[in-house]
Amino acid sequence: MKQRIVCLLLGLSGCFLPIQAQNIPVYLDESKTIEERVEDALSRMTIEEKIALLHAQSKFSSAGVPRLGIPEVWMTDGPHGIRPEVLWDEWAQAGWTNDSCTAFPALTALAATWNPELAMNYGKAIGEEARYRKKTVLLGPGVNIYRTPLNGRNFEYMGEDPYLASRMVVPYVVGVQSNGVAACVKHFALNNQETERGTIDVVADERALREIYLPAFKAAVQEGQVWAIMGAYNKYLGEHCSHNAYLLKKILREEWGFNGVVISDWGGVHDTREAIFNGLDMEFGTWTGGDDWSNSDSYSQYFLANPYLELIKAGEVGTAELDEKARNVLRLIFRTEMNRNRPWGKFVSEDHSKTAWEIATESIVLLKNNGNLLPIDVSKANKIAIIGENAIKKMTVGGGSSSLKAQYEILPLEGLRKYLEPQVEVVYARGYVGDVSTEFDNVSTGQDLRDNRSPEELLKEALVVAKDADYVIFIGGLNKSHEQDSEGADRKSMDLPYGQDKLISELAKVNPNLIVVNISGNAVTMPWVNEVPAIVQAWFLGSEAGHAIASVLCGEVNPSGKLPFTFPVKLKDNAAHSLGAYPGNDGKVEYKESILVGYRWHDTKKIKPLFGFGHGLSYTTFEYGKAQLSSSTLSRHEQIICSVEVTNTGNKPGYETVQLYISDLKSSLQRPLKELKAFRKLMLNPGETKTIEFAIDNEMLQFYDDTKSAWVSEDGSFEILIGSSSTDIRTKAKFNLK
Amino acid sequence: MKQRIVCLLLGLSGCFLPIQAQNIPVYLDESKTIEERVEDALSRMTIEEKIALLHAQSKFSSAGVPRLGIPEVWMTDGPHGIRPEVLWDEWAQAGWTNDSCTAFPALTALAATWNPELAMNYGKAIGEEARYRKKTVLLGPGVNIYRTPLNGRNFEYMGEDPYLASRMVVPYVVGVQSNGVAACVKHFALNNQETERGTIDVVADERALREIYLPAFKAAVQEGQVWAIMGAYNKYLGEHCSHNAYLLKKILREEWGFNGVVISDWGGVHDTREAIFNGLDMEFGTWTGGDDWSNSDSYSQYFLANPYLELIKAGEVGTAELDEKARNVLRLIFRTEMNRNRPWGKFVSEDHSKTAWEIATESIVLLKNNGNLLPIDVSKANKIAIIGENAIKKMTVGGGSSSLKAQYEILPLEGLRKYLEPQVEVVYARGYVGDVSTEFDNVSTGQDLRDNRSPEELLKEALVVAKDADYVIFIGGLNKSHEQDSEGADRKSMDLPYGQDKLISELAKVNPNLIVVNISGNAVTMPWVNEVPAIVQAWFLGSEAGHAIASVLCGEVNPSGKLPFTFPVKLKDNAAHSLGAYPGNDGKVEYKESILVGYRWHDTKKIKPLFGFGHGLSYTTFEYGKAQLSSSTLSRHEQIICSVEVTNTGNKPGYETVQLYISDLKSSLQRPLKELKAFRKLMLNPGETKTIEFAIDNEMLQFYDDTKSAWVSEDGSFEILIGSSSTDIRTKAKFNLK
Repeated sequence: MKQRIVCLLLGLSGCFLPIQAQNIPVYLDESKTIEERVEDALSRMTIEEKIALLHAQSKFSSAGVPRLGIPEVWMTDGPHGIRPEVLWDEWAQAGWTNDSCTAFPALTALAATWNPELAMNYGKAIGEEARYRKKTVLLGPGVNIYRTPLNGRNFEYMGEDPYLASRMVVPYVVGVQSNGVAACVKHFALNNQETERGTIDVVADERALREIYLPAFKAAVQEGQVWAIMGAYNKYLGEHCSHNAYLLKKILREEWGFNGVVISDWGGVHDTREAIFNGLDMEFGTWTGGDDWSNSDSYSQYFLANPYLELIKAGEVGTAELDEKARNVLRLIFRTEMNRNRPWGKFVSEDHSKTAWEIATESIVLLKNNGNLLPIDVSKANKIAIIGENAIKKMTVGGGSSSLKAQYEILPLEGLRKYLEPQVEVVYARGYVGDVSTEFDNVSTGQDLRDNRSPEELLKEALVVAKDADYVIFIGGLNKSHEQDSEGADRKSMDLPYGQDKLISELAKVNPNLIVVNISGNAVTMPWVNEVPAIVQAWFLGSEAGHAIASVLCGEVNPSGKLPFTFPVKLKDNAAHSLGAYPGNDGKVEYKESILVGYRWHDTKKIKPLFGFGHGLSYTTFEYGKAQLSSSTLSRHEQIICSVEVTNTGNKPGYETVQLYISDLKSSLQRPLKELKAFRKLMLNPGETKTIEFAIDNEMLQFYDDTKSAWVSEDGSFEILIGSSSTDIRTKAKFNLK
Repeated sequence: MKQRIVCLLLGLSGCFLPIQAQNIPVYLDESKTIEERVEDALSRMTIEEKIALLHAQSKFSSAGVPRLGIPEVWMTDGPHGIRPEVLWDEWAQAGWTNDSCTAFPALTALAATWNPELAMNYGKAIGEEARYRKKTVLLGPGVNIYRTPLNGRNFEYMGEDPYLASRMVVPYVVGVQSNGVAACVKHFALNNQETERGTIDVVADERALREIYLPAFKAAVQEGQVWAIMGAYNKYLGEHCSHNAYLLKKILREEWGFNGVVISDWGGVHDTREAIFNGLDMEFGTWTGGDDWSNSDSYSQYFLANPYLELIKAGEVGTAELDEKARNVLRLIFRTEMNRNRPWGKFVSEDHSKTAWEIATESIVLLKNNGNLLPIDVSKANKIAIIGENAIKKMTVGGGSSSLKAQYEILPLEGLRKYLEPQVEVVYARGYVGDVSTEFDNVSTGQDLRDNRSPEELLKEALVVAKDADYVIFIGGLNKSHEQDSEGADRKSMDLPYGQDKLISELAKVNPNLIVVNISGNAVTMPWVNEVPAIVQAWFLGSEAGHAIASVLCGEVNPSGKLPFTFPVKLKDNAAHSLGAYPGNDGKVEYKESILVGYRWHDTKKIKPLFGFGHGLSYTTFEYGKAQLSSSTLSRHEQIICSVEVTNTGNKPGYETVQLYISDLKSSLQRPLKELKAFRKLMLNPGETKTIEFAIDNEMLQFYDDTKSAWVSEDGSFEILIGSSSTDIRTKAKFNLK
């Protein structure tokens, strides 16, 4: 046999056959649907490969299918900035130098803006940072409802109202996911305290669950189309929420149609069979390594690792659940890592700083401003005294898993100096000393905030400094230390720590022009409220904190934040504490207040708050016209339009957030006095009037009837209440539902 | 002023404005050319951002432009597998568990296949592994020419012949880059010894440079379109090669038109001004941290970091070079990280193992096979003795920067047991003990190869084991320890270490059926060559080593490897050593042999090698017909065709690599006796004949005329020599160039 071979190309020019165009497998064929690709990938995988998808391989990553070229999944905290890299199997930072992020304001601040457009910008920006850092899933946002001012993690959440949280979480999720990065809404569900969070069994009635604790999750799933959700640490109905049949199977999957992944909170898995059968997809953070914390083999001992594999191999459980979980993870990967069209992201850009600044400035709440003490009249001031530790304390570090390595953080003192100096002499005294954690204050922040002077010495110095200043700005509040606004423990008291109450009262005595800036993610008591003419609620504001606070105090920005939760006068005024329903006992906490959370409690029980939900003043004033209804009768398949004029009657441009509450005047089941059902933030120039229209429909009138397991509305009279806050209703209108 | 705002959507359904379709900046506009996008990105960058592109930020990464969303660059060793992750600023492994790669055969093995299609498969496969591991640049292949058998790094390169290396490097580069991962051909240039590699000034004449040392680089650049090249450690013309004006500016950029990036070898940069002006783009591995090896700030002290910035700011140097370097890095990023269409890669897949196995089996060279001792007749053997440490020694670990954490490595003993047991009794004795490095043998490989017995005891045991076996397979050679086949030092001798020569001779005395398998990436002396009937040259074969060796020894695979370098009888037979031109003195090494490297020296000087370049036997035999020319005259713009028939005259299917050399019978300048100009590897079944055609053109006849600085050919007679190796020419034909 002879054969002629022409090998001119090979011999002469080094050309070679191109890589052959092969039949692309379906899972790599981008003309196919994700579902087709998922099924095809699944069909090629071994049981071991499917198992590998379901649990961590390191602190924050899980395996892909390397053999098939399906990428790994990399998670990152947290809700308000991209967590610095940690070592493979240790919590310690990995010492990278490329991971100093933009710190965005914590989510309570975002909620206080009442501006869904900013939530979209927030999500888009933080998603860009996650994308640039090659992360698949951003572990946020958190939408657990603010039930008690003691919850150490409230600062990460969006306040006490399910409607406000819903309206803010949806654009955040959409913004994040526009980058091909999954948001992971958390902690599902009923994780409303840190005390005993890993074991506490929450007893909440069905109405509270449906009306108060779930709506923001439902909005994230159904409107935001979120790709991931995190199971909470606590129990509900006796099962841990990361493998809770009722929450994950019945409500999330069946009722809501969720087709993303359910990720456990880190260490939130406790049982292989429950994890298999109750809807968990991905297990993270389980500690299985005994005494040896550097034992990487522990990952194979995860509940959804070898123990699951062994049950399958022994024939004790089938593979239907395995396939379904693997499908969910594959779908996540196709939506994110294998989405060829996603953008590249970016990191610490000018527009991210601008977004952080906008959110921070719009979130700051002017609680009180007697005699228009604010804004500071820089032209008339010679000397301004700044007092308080929070003027010089970094707040981007600490607080638990949301702790950041920020590229920069403008401290309040620094921001104020920029705005005031050199026209005004700025003097500073610390006034008090808070907790100094070696870990956070010295190592991570690079700050050494130790101060060995006695409280008396510090107080005395502060009073001397304050006495002859034109203004005194006290900047205090809580911080990110253990048992303050920090994950893992609740606050021990609603009062300000470190003797601040006494200091504030003393300052008020020596100088009438006292401005108190409370930096916190929680309500605090203010026994000195009547002694202080101006009070400002700031939050954990991230990289631009100091700029934002200064811009509001100095009048460059007219404050427009509204409280996303109630400030009670005292802890016992809060529903849970009033009823002795916190922190529970014998491993259970019963939500005795049911649906009467936050302003729903204060309204219904007629307990006057210190500052009400939705409260927030402006440097200008707004007048409301009379609410007009397009009809006095609403049928269940139609809408009526409620319109109201709002006029800026002051002399500065400003934002007003017009809030619409609805009161069900007669109901077969108890309802709160009123509930937020719509809002609109709008800019008005001095003298300008705008007419706002709200559409009212049947859905806004519904409650969850636990006797029928359904959302229902009942014929009868309803009242629309429109105002500047829940405690400042300006106009009302009635209509009938038929 | 009144304005009506309809906010139905916002109030009711949580809808929001979609992220606005913005004017995409040109650098993100994929309808634009890369050059347009590079220019646009450049125009948006600060000087500091440009500087940041030019130097490392960690051991293996450099910054992108985070603000603009331009990704970072991540490098990875090495040429034959993806290096495990290291800590940010330390060489120590990071302890990840997802980075155990497929170990491919070292590049000398690839060269020994003489199969460019396998080089393509190799590049594609390793590029897929790099891509899956999110690497931007694969730091390979290495194509430094084999000048001396002592070079500790020869195993990483492609042998002594510029044509063979060229034909193998091009498909490797194309294969890698088909993944959107850059290959980085190295070490440019003249890095032919490890002794004093960081300081030695190589004195090579222009002809040696052009004809011997540069062609593979030129092919990688011009045919392979390689995106990156690495400057060598050594000097040439008194300048370090990483910032060498002649090599980088004149030859690489001007003559060859290279538009990729020039990356320094790690620590290869020594001078800011030379780095600025002499064509370097990216500086890596410079040690500037004084005594503190954990000082991350050192990156800002790199020659192309702050020192460059300061020169610019002081007005001492302009920014033209800066822009050009930044352009080159941006172009790299657009070709790789920002290539939206690149595939996803994969990691440790079956087909990667198959590719590794194919390369390994085709690379093994049957040096000698008296009496057809090989392949082993398993049906006739009762007992086979395997002797030698390399039967049980991992070779994927060690050797310097190419050291790997392989997912698996089949050891030779393991592979042979799989093929032989249980039909045959396999007995093993170690025979000798090599270096035991704590680092490599105990820690990284998990092997504890310590053995405290004396050489005499080991020898005695081996002889006892060998004596009554049907076959004795000795598996020895070099290893990856310091001063063996390992980066950073050269071998001290060409002889086998650890008393192997004596052991082999003794084994030959006790058993005539002795097979010696030499595992090395270098030539070794074989004083026992006439005492041993069968000798096999294996290489560092990677994950599939044991399978490949067993498959050849047992006859499943008919060996087809051909030596990519000459085995001299003794070190002094090598040109450099014959002329006392190694390792140089007073900081210089003069390449006195000029173009007479390898077989060019042996041929021209008539020094018979132990085994010649291109040598390699088969289990079958091939007969060559007479070379036929389509014309006896060649003009400079035409081709003539040389054809030859090759027949498999044995009884096994087998590959033969038909080699075509050309001899310039008369030349104004000295030329080697003959030079490889074409080859073709083909499969022939028993009795099958194929006709090979080679096109001969003017380019194949050229030499570099250093008096004219040009490639020239001279009219006159040339001879074509076709054969099975450089020392086994089977047919010749003459023609004239006019």
